[in-house]
Amino acid sequence: MQIAMIQDRIVPLNELDGAYMDRGTYFGDGVYEVVRSYDGRIFALSEHLTRFARSLNEIGIAGVDINEIHRRIERAYEAASIGDAKIYFHITRGSQQRSHVGARELKPNFFLTVTELADDSEQKERGISVSTFPDWRWARCDIKSLNLLPNVLARIDAEKKGCGEAILVDEKGYITEGAGSAFFAVSAQQRRVVTRRLGRAILPSITRRFVIEIAQKGGLTVVERAITPAQAQWADELFIAVTTRDIVPVVEFDGERIGTGRPGECAKWLMNEFRKLVVSARR
Amino acid sequence: MQIAMIQDRIVPLNELDGAYMDRGTYFGDGVYEVVRSYDGRIFALSEHLTRFARSLNEIGIAGVDINEIHRRIERAYEAASIGDAKIYFHITRGSQQRSHVGARELKPNFFLTVTELADDSEQKERGISVSTFPDWRWARCDIKSLNLLPNVLARIDAEKKGCGEAILVDEKGYITEGAGSAFFAVSAQQRRVVTRRLGRAILPSITRRFVIEIAQKGGLTVVERAITPAQAQWADELFIAVTTRDIVPVVEFDGERIGTGRPGECAKWLMNEFRKLVVSARR
Repeated sequence: MQIAMIQDRIVPLNELDGAYMDRGTYFGDGVYEVVRSYDGRIFALSEHLTRFARSLNEIGIAGVDINEIHRRIERAYEAASIGDAKIYFHITRGSQQRSHVGARELKPNFFLTVTELADDSEQKERGISVSTFPDWRWARCDIKSLNLLPNVLARIDAEKKGCGEAILVDEKGYITEGAGSAFFAVSAQQRRVVTRRLGRAILPSITRRFVIEIAQKGGLTVVERAITPAQAQWADELFIAVTTRDIVPVVEFDGERIGTGRPGECAKWLMNEFRKLVVSARR
Repeated sequence: MQIAMIQDRIVPLNELDGAYMDRGTYFGDGVYEVVRSYDGRIFALSEHLTRFARSLNEIGIAGVDINEIHRRIERAYEAASIGDAKIYFHITRGSQQRSHVGARELKPNFFLTVTELADDSEQKERGISVSTFPDWRWARCDIKSLNLLPNVLARIDAEKKGCGEAILVDEKGYITEGAGSAFFAVSAQQRRVVTRRLGRAILPSITRRFVIEIAQKGGLTVVERAITPAQAQWADELFIAVTTRDIVPVVEFDGERIGTGRPGECAKWLMNEFRKLVVSARR
């Protein structure tokens, strides 16, 4: 008889809950998004859903109605009724007995959580320390997939070093992005913000896009270029950007103090402008 | 209230089954093994458990008693009572609300299935076609992790082309291994078997090790070297090796016939010797 075992409990295979047969677990065969709400309103949902649809398409998960997903997210968010919430959702190729090639008639699995967002105002006010870690990720980081073990290993390493984010460094010695964020360096004198160019090496971050728009509108020059950790340590300011944390100043990089060791003027200005954008989006 | 949504059904987060909170699904934060039995006896279990322990260690999942895992596997296999079985098992870092850094007190999740092995004698007799696909995997393929989306995409592509395995090609144009197997090329005249050297680019395959031992005992020279697809197409014979399929001859590579287009003498001899090894291990 075909069986499964969960911890030390034996279960007939045909009585197993579909959650245990999810290709998400066996292969990370799925894609995800994280959106957040501010004060009762989900921010930039359509931008995230556009990226989600692209991710689904890139890994060949078909038959997902994005409008239906949109409605589910809104319904779930209403039911949760949390002002400042983190909304995580993923779709996997489906559940079946483990086999690399999925059966053609598989039904994709949708899963979502709505949880309270932890307050990170202290991190924003003080800035965070970051540490570097090798970028071991796959060659298609433009797809927001469930294959996140390299990100997890980088974050565990950073945590051990007392850092709030890991900055990934590729084989050639250049920074790609944070393990869970976009990464920016600022030259104050040149009024210039530098971040890695989009491509397969980084995620097309939604927050990155807003940061670039705000910076350009404010008269800053945005340069999309790869830099090394040694160069980052010479920057006047560093910061990361990600949906769940907006913009967070980086005040220490691999043990080196950045600028004055306190959040810089540019990051503070961007944080403020970003906040205005959020408020105007709520109207 | 914090909630989850499964397909279109809303569930309070604190009533959610741990299977839905598994870091295996969120991040692929776990490692796995596949062993098989021949005629009522598990083959090479201790070799697989040694590799499993290494994988766990490499990703920092601590507190797993490998002897206890060994006992669980034997108990599950006895309960299933399937002569020729495929035994899949994984351990993930545990279940918790999604967060890249795991809580320190997490309890790892063990999961196993024992299923019937499909008969592949026809594939062995006729040989299979293979097609190449870019090796998009992460930089630590020596760890047998649950991050298998690139392997899945490669296998789906191969399936579309009517092929039984995808052969992965790295950025520099060299073959690493199959999406789910080790890869070998044979020069009949030089009595030489070529396969990629172990390292972070490939899995330390158990079947690969047996193949090398058998080949060397039989007087063949084993060369660990990377080759290109163009070189592979010039080989007298090609074959793949993997636990669930042993040795399978490859008779077509990216549409090019290999050798006579039928399984070669070397592959047939290795298959036969491997079978003897299995029989002697059963005694």
